[in-house]
Amino acid sequence: MNYRMISHYIGRILLVEGILMFLPAICAVIYGEDTLISFAVTIAALAVTGAIAIKQKSKKTNIYAKEGYAIVALSWILMSLFGALPFFISGYVPNFIDAFFETVSGFTTTGASILNDVEAMPKSLLFWRSFIVWIGGMGVLVFMIAIMPKTESNAMHVMRAEVPGPTVGKLVSKLRATARILYGIYFAFTLIEAVLLLAGGMPLFDSIANALATAGTGGFSVLSKSIEGYNSLYTEIVMGIFMLIFSINFNLYYLVIIKQWKQAVKSEELRWFIGIVFASIIIIALSLINENYNASYSFRHAFFQVSSIISTAGFSSTNFDTWPVIAKFILIILMFTGACAGSTCGGMKLSRVIVLIKSGFRDIKKAVNPRSIETVKVDKRSIDEPVVKSISVFFSIYMILTAISILLISLNGKDLVTTSTAVISCMGNIGPGLAEVGPYGSFAGFSNFSKLVLCFDMLAGRLELIPMLMLFSPYAWARKYS
Amino acid sequence: MNYRMISHYIGRILLVEGILMFLPAICAVIYGEDTLISFAVTIAALAVTGAIAIKQKSKKTNIYAKEGYAIVALSWILMSLFGALPFFISGYVPNFIDAFFETVSGFTTTGASILNDVEAMPKSLLFWRSFIVWIGGMGVLVFMIAIMPKTESNAMHVMRAEVPGPTVGKLVSKLRATARILYGIYFAFTLIEAVLLLAGGMPLFDSIANALATAGTGGFSVLSKSIEGYNSLYTEIVMGIFMLIFSINFNLYYLVIIKQWKQAVKSEELRWFIGIVFASIIIIALSLINENYNASYSFRHAFFQVSSIISTAGFSSTNFDTWPVIAKFILIILMFTGACAGSTCGGMKLSRVIVLIKSGFRDIKKAVNPRSIETVKVDKRSIDEPVVKSISVFFSIYMILTAISILLISLNGKDLVTTSTAVISCMGNIGPGLAEVGPYGSFAGFSNFSKLVLCFDMLAGRLELIPMLMLFSPYAWARKYS
Repeated sequence: MNYRMISHYIGRILLVEGILMFLPAICAVIYGEDTLISFAVTIAALAVTGAIAIKQKSKKTNIYAKEGYAIVALSWILMSLFGALPFFISGYVPNFIDAFFETVSGFTTTGASILNDVEAMPKSLLFWRSFIVWIGGMGVLVFMIAIMPKTESNAMHVMRAEVPGPTVGKLVSKLRATARILYGIYFAFTLIEAVLLLAGGMPLFDSIANALATAGTGGFSVLSKSIEGYNSLYTEIVMGIFMLIFSINFNLYYLVIIKQWKQAVKSEELRWFIGIVFASIIIIALSLINENYNASYSFRHAFFQVSSIISTAGFSSTNFDTWPVIAKFILIILMFTGACAGSTCGGMKLSRVIVLIKSGFRDIKKAVNPRSIETVKVDKRSIDEPVVKSISVFFSIYMILTAISILLISLNGKDLVTTSTAVISCMGNIGPGLAEVGPYGSFAGFSNFSKLVLCFDMLAGRLELIPMLMLFSPYAWARKYS
Repeated sequence: MNYRMISHYIGRILLVEGILMFLPAICAVIYGEDTLISFAVTIAALAVTGAIAIKQKSKKTNIYAKEGYAIVALSWILMSLFGALPFFISGYVPNFIDAFFETVSGFTTTGASILNDVEAMPKSLLFWRSFIVWIGGMGVLVFMIAIMPKTESNAMHVMRAEVPGPTVGKLVSKLRATARILYGIYFAFTLIEAVLLLAGGMPLFDSIANALATAGTGGFSVLSKSIEGYNSLYTEIVMGIFMLIFSINFNLYYLVIIKQWKQAVKSEELRWFIGIVFASIIIIALSLINENYNASYSFRHAFFQVSSIISTAGFSSTNFDTWPVIAKFILIILMFTGACAGSTCGGMKLSRVIVLIKSGFRDIKKAVNPRSIETVKVDKRSIDEPVVKSISVFFSIYMILTAISILLISLNGKDLVTTSTAVISCMGNIGPGLAEVGPYGSFAGFSNFSKLVLCFDMLAGRLELIPMLMLFSPYAWARKYS
């Protein structure tokens, strides 16, 4: 392990976090809030720590996969620890574990909250909370790449650990340029959404905060009742559509920009995504109508909740915890799948699910005709067998980690549905679950131990398992490999 | 597809079922019950159908994997259809779907029941019900091989589809001899258990019925309150131990018989099995003590229920539906894993779980050190990569099928815990689940559609997915492959 280079990169990241924190500090000035001092203290702490860490530059500047994973995992944990300080120092979140949970939830774009009364919080902290989601959304390290004067090979390992989804598609040859393009698309969509929300009559502050949280598919909202609090069909439609927009592989937008429309539309993952969204909306709406909800309620909220859950944003427009079992179970499945790779969404990503399903069919086919030679194809290209295997193994690890986490959280004595949906929701970076952690509930009722387990799950889910698991793996720290 | 040979083999199997049905018929005579006529009618129907089917012998006697799977899947379905007739014709189970569900549950050694009042049933039907489990337990086709004057190559394909677990271990070179040995072990253990139960004061009929159901790890009992009805610590210990005995790979008993003790004890799966059983008992017992149950209740029932669920028998000694969440969740995990391959238990089998976990660790290791070349090792031997992959894919199919089934059953409007544990329990061939299908409940409340979905799950779980999925696969019936 090249500890010095790890320290150096983390130092850079902490300095960037310090710079970004000027925004909520300015917000505190505008609204004349007493949180200003807590932001100032945190910025100072970040500056000092960052400056010390960044000095640890090694002569050996090359970093390998192992270092890349360590940088990613440690930087998300450290950013969350520092990011939690304003909540804690200002006294609005008196338990530090709660503040840490809320910040991890933000940086991982989960949106699970321990706040019972969101409206009681100062605007600057609410802004910071939503801004954290936005930073987390695109991945602070993709962001880093864009401003990092480094060679491609170094950055590539960080990129591999960071970009959500099974494959890293290089849009253009230079990584910095790639990151800038993705970042530009991300910024533009956020701006458009904020303007559209504002045009619909939403207050300026709420428009910005909700747009930031939508972009990162994080789902923190500035009202306790989430989007239901606005009771506006227009708002739900705008946010519902933008959640879907942020669930699509950003590479496809790039293809559109360079006028490769046809190639973008051909994407198999996109077609599955659209199909799953439509099918889920229709089944859920019908199940609601069957339970005597009226048709306009049914389609309106089926659309918003499907969009919110598959995008893993986790906003709520109604209390879906009271919905029929089939509707709730579809939402649980969507919590596992998530949407497209290369977007800001969480979950396992549809491209993985597609490969899993196709390899299942392939294996049935092969059992029936042992001599047949079939490969798994996506977008008409064969997937290499090691990739198929590693996706299957990813799925196994995902499910095993889910099971172990539920086991640990069940020590908390909550009911089975609360316990399991809390874990599924955190692993998939959704936000709400069912029962006690449903849209009207919060994660405040869990013990500190449970909250830390859920923090681990949020980080593991967001960072695609390996970086977080590696931190606990003896191989990573063993001298013989270093 | 060699339809004629498929028909021929199924004909043989149906004739054997007809012969086996003389036993419950004799039972009806002994107890002077009015069910005799329904057994007679069914035997006649089996004889006629079997005789017609068996005549369809082809000149091309060779069968391939595809035909093997078709024989297995179709024969289990047909045996269940005929096996259900005595329940239905006698009028004791007036709905044929219910009778079919109960019979599928028996042949798949699940033990899920639609009977609310077991004591109201005539003894001959209860005997048939337990006997079905016993037949299913060892696999009627392994049984078939032993009396089938066929070449090894033919039988091998049937065997591959039949023997539970990822690999087929040939004990001795000839399959018929193998089957006879396994069958002998199975018979001997059943007899010993029945004698021990009888010695403990259990009535003769109950001793035989419970021993048959234990051997097949089916868990049908002759009392509505299952084993709790006897309220006997001795009975629970004897049955608890025998459930574990029937959960161990039968190959290991063979190794013991040929005095290869050391090799048997070295089995990695066996060690995991023992470890998991001990750990589960201790955690569950502690969680019960923590909830103010007394220590003797806690250890007694933790032992029995862990043994019952991991063996996938599904007997109950208490209403574990009221246990704390962590205890219930451990039982749910055991429902997924099952016990050792090559035993009569259901679930995914521990050997698969071991490979999944190890391949997870291997992939983490490989991510950290991309140049490392590591293989997954079980019993100190490397597992071929295609086997690792197909086990991962098996797991994916298992989970996807579970999810789809829960979705279909959730149309029934039951709560989430009932719906999901019913499916998990049927897929793993356990028997009871939680909530409405808990130890004090039954599957009677489900709709006919749900019951048929659960029948499919029981068959798919028991036959290791492929044969049942193949029946619904266009590849199997496509002309170009035949």
